[in-house]
Amino acid sequence: MYKVKVYVILRESVLDPQGQAVTHSLNSLNYREVTDVRIGKYMELTIEKSEREINEVVDEICHKLLANPVIEDYRYEIEECVVQ
Amino acid sequence: MYKVKVYVILRESVLDPQGQAVTHSLNSLNYREVTDVRIGKYMELTIEKSEREINEVVDEICHKLLANPVIEDYRYEIEECVVQ
Repeated sequence: MYKVKVYVILRESVLDPQGQAVTHSLNSLNYREVTDVRIGKYMELTIEKSEREINEVVDEICHKLLANPVIEDYRYEIEECVVQ
Repeated sequence: MYKVKVYVILRESVLDPQGQAVTHSLNSLNYREVTDVRIGKYMELTIEKSEREINEVVDEICHKLLANPVIEDYRYEIEECVVQ
């Protein structure tokens, strides 16, 4: 079994209005030291072992469903768990 | 200047309907090896140095605005950047 952590974030060149809203909220809560916020998604997947290579499966899943590769970048970490 | 990465995820005991929907979508796309998906938020903050301790500032921000401590857990990583 694998635990996969996927991080998806808007590309640098893409405007992030949600992040701007959070920056403004923080500034008005008097956290003026916060100059920028970018908001993305964080996902934890549990994947059973199969005959396919895990990296390949995760890459496909990210491309097809979890991220929009036109405007988003993603990265992931794979952890193998031993079930006892 | 600090780059802070914040990860927010629903507590284990809280149902995650969005994650269930993604699990079903993946299963119907023939990724039957995916047994569970939990969806959270990933945020990158840029914070200037101030007289306050950075850990304290980030903890406060997470508690007040970025996470709902009743149903969500958060963790963060702080990276110090040198501006040249």
